[in-house]
Amino acid sequence: MEQKEFSEFAKSMVEYIGQYLENIRDRRVLPTVEPGYLRPCLPETAPEDPDKWQDVMADIERVIMPGVTHWHSPRFHAYFPTANSYPAIVADMLSDAIACIGFSWIASPACTELEVVMLDWLGKMLGLPNEFLACSGGKAGGVIQGTASEATLVALLGAKARAVRKAKEQHPDWTDAVINSKLIAYASEQAHSSVERAGLLGGVTFRNLKVDSHYRLHGDTVDEAIKKDLKEGLIPFYVVATLGTTSVCSFDLVTEIGPVCRKHDLWLHIDAAYAGSAFICPEYRYLMEGVELADSFNFNPHKWMLVTFDCSAMWLKDPTDVIDAFNVDPLYLKHEQQGSAPDYRHWQIPLGRRFRSLKLWFVMRLYGVKNLQAHIRKQIGFAHQFEAYVNEDERFELVGDVLMGLVCFRLKGSNELNEKLLKRINGNGKIHLVPSKIDGLYFLRLAICSRYTESTDIEFSWTEIKSLANDVLVEEK
Amino acid sequence: MEQKEFSEFAKSMVEYIGQYLENIRDRRVLPTVEPGYLRPCLPETAPEDPDKWQDVMADIERVIMPGVTHWHSPRFHAYFPTANSYPAIVADMLSDAIACIGFSWIASPACTELEVVMLDWLGKMLGLPNEFLACSGGKAGGVIQGTASEATLVALLGAKARAVRKAKEQHPDWTDAVINSKLIAYASEQAHSSVERAGLLGGVTFRNLKVDSHYRLHGDTVDEAIKKDLKEGLIPFYVVATLGTTSVCSFDLVTEIGPVCRKHDLWLHIDAAYAGSAFICPEYRYLMEGVELADSFNFNPHKWMLVTFDCSAMWLKDPTDVIDAFNVDPLYLKHEQQGSAPDYRHWQIPLGRRFRSLKLWFVMRLYGVKNLQAHIRKQIGFAHQFEAYVNEDERFELVGDVLMGLVCFRLKGSNELNEKLLKRINGNGKIHLVPSKIDGLYFLRLAICSRYTESTDIEFSWTEIKSLANDVLVEEK
Repeated sequence: MEQKEFSEFAKSMVEYIGQYLENIRDRRVLPTVEPGYLRPCLPETAPEDPDKWQDVMADIERVIMPGVTHWHSPRFHAYFPTANSYPAIVADMLSDAIACIGFSWIASPACTELEVVMLDWLGKMLGLPNEFLACSGGKAGGVIQGTASEATLVALLGAKARAVRKAKEQHPDWTDAVINSKLIAYASEQAHSSVERAGLLGGVTFRNLKVDSHYRLHGDTVDEAIKKDLKEGLIPFYVVATLGTTSVCSFDLVTEIGPVCRKHDLWLHIDAAYAGSAFICPEYRYLMEGVELADSFNFNPHKWMLVTFDCSAMWLKDPTDVIDAFNVDPLYLKHEQQGSAPDYRHWQIPLGRRFRSLKLWFVMRLYGVKNLQAHIRKQIGFAHQFEAYVNEDERFELVGDVLMGLVCFRLKGSNELNEKLLKRINGNGKIHLVPSKIDGLYFLRLAICSRYTESTDIEFSWTEIKSLANDVLVEEK
Repeated sequence: MEQKEFSEFAKSMVEYIGQYLENIRDRRVLPTVEPGYLRPCLPETAPEDPDKWQDVMADIERVIMPGVTHWHSPRFHAYFPTANSYPAIVADMLSDAIACIGFSWIASPACTELEVVMLDWLGKMLGLPNEFLACSGGKAGGVIQGTASEATLVALLGAKARAVRKAKEQHPDWTDAVINSKLIAYASEQAHSSVERAGLLGGVTFRNLKVDSHYRLHGDTVDEAIKKDLKEGLIPFYVVATLGTTSVCSFDLVTEIGPVCRKHDLWLHIDAAYAGSAFICPEYRYLMEGVELADSFNFNPHKWMLVTFDCSAMWLKDPTDVIDAFNVDPLYLKHEQQGSAPDYRHWQIPLGRRFRSLKLWFVMRLYGVKNLQAHIRKQIGFAHQFEAYVNEDERFELVGDVLMGLVCFRLKGSNELNEKLLKRINGNGKIHLVPSKIDGLYFLRLAICSRYTESTDIEFSWTEIKSLANDVLVEEK
């Protein structure tokens, strides 16, 4: 394919994308296909000779769209939002064209340097303490990870390296295997499944600690767990505090957990994957109070800040232990400017990395701080609109507090009743929700996801839920 | 930014990209900026009000391009190629617009199903044995990882889970910590740095085994190492064979290593990150003979098969152990069709994943197998053209065999002389190369990277190298 054809093809795709997104509300949010639907739509092998791009374009509606769950429909309320915006799409086009692999500074200086500066812009937007930012002049700074899972794992590996070094200083006769078997990490029982996975991957034990009636982890719970483990000769080394848990969007109390981590000298990582975007609005920053006590902080602009996946922003006060944990430095990757700018390959799990800071740059510039704040406030407003509907209907009850863009609710009554309701909702396919369960209580999660969502969409979703609830309740009688 | 503006902006970017790529040869391949160049070009914070997209477009040449290393210039010979093509750029646009997160089948069935079928197409193109493919009807199949580093780590974690399970069956009293401390993995001393990193991350010991004079790892070397470790009561569990090493593009002998792995029941992973793309040409498949003995196979279409980063293709004969190693399954990720299609979140380290199979689909269809093969053959031809130049000049010598698109060479003489030559080459900035070193021998690596490369470009690069070699040699006298 040469430039002229690319130009036609890409412009045709631009139009298609615009049509798709602007009219996304009209599509059934959840597809009706069965597993295995796609294979019969395609030949068994790749073509020997090239197809026409027009045929590929036509196959999008024939092959792909029937099997797409439309994450950007205002009818989509599952999981948490994933971001999508026009500026980010255009930025990714440029990133794909430059197509450098920014594993070291010299591999494309602009790729590293824009990332350093954009993570400063972003950190300032969030009101992160200066000691997390590269512009503070110290070792600190931000980095773009692929996902929050990776950030949790990277922080864990840094914490592990630090703990192993300290243990060896105190017990020169202990082997790595002995030390590893003693390492204990902590998180709320409401922490994301990726936190447990980070423990599996890093080969360390995680303790899932009890939360209060608002699903928040407290400092004294962490303190007691650490003391118990210390008594047993174990080595507590890492705590993950979650700001905005996946099940109910609860917020661990960093003001309490931070001092405990400082007292016992544990690495504190804050996982604000979803809710972190809200901290660009000063009125929500009370939820991250105590952040200055953390060693690392992470949130996903690719969730709620209109930057397309993947772009998970992570800051480290002192990346030395992370860098040392990852540092394998063959000659073909060395360069003369080493040390005067970050070589981000030492800050992450993979070696390769795309030019992702372009997306942050485009989005922050083409929305401006004001419009990004307006986006967050508008979506939280919709959550409160839905919360009010639930409150007004005495057949329903809320689960947890509505603080961000997530409303957890259920029909008063059995889990089975609510499972039936959810099955009916997703089966009907007009809107899409997923459930969660805490301490045996099954409930439905309604997340405000699409940037196209308007107040009438919330009304629509509530009407659908209420109508199917009527059916289910009538059948129960 | 609304649709109309997006349409203008995106189309302007389409034109920019076309101009950038078609004229990339005219840009200095290596930038002249110093660390810290970018920060003064930008404001200290994100703007409160939106900027105009026209201003963002203008800033690409002002802020970004002065710091870009042009990986797609025919003057770029560093590292290994990274892919770039028009069809892949357009596919990524669509992926960004759909912007689903395909962690489970229901999260967007098309995302999972196209990946399953595309990995079958691709596997067939490579001539992979049927037992790696999903269309074989068993558990086997392919998955897109971000990078080869991740594939190596995923295979290691699967192998580790399998080994731990086996060890516990034989020694019910052994703890995980005891077993982990006994686990031993093996790779050639020429394996990629990410293999060593996978060992660090997975917390297991890697043995770097000796290679022959062609930098290839032999079966008896692996066999001896395994036997020695078994004698010492250790648990050999994982072997990585590299097809196309980074330093010299040598090929481990899978026909020999495979039977050793089968004899001792070790997981054999094949890392063909760079060279794997060449196996779409039947005449190069002799280099992967024995592949049927492997448990997992990986190569990067994002290196040499015109699919933009990231797209690392991995096949597993039996993913059960990988899935079990990763399986953390909260209610909000469960769905009714579980088990009837892969839930790829269990096949990888992060939870989130983009719709990357679109890139494979577009590239395979819009090039066709014939043109992809032609691309590989043409680039290998250029390597031989350069090899001939080196052979004809008696001041130079080759290092290793030229089998793919990489030529390793040096001036006969000291390492210092060659370091001086390389510094001169990169300082001049007309072409860009990186060095490597094996057993104390320093040499230069010239990789054929750009899809725009023509025979005259190879001539140009050789003329530049020869001319600077003249200078260096004259100064030495």
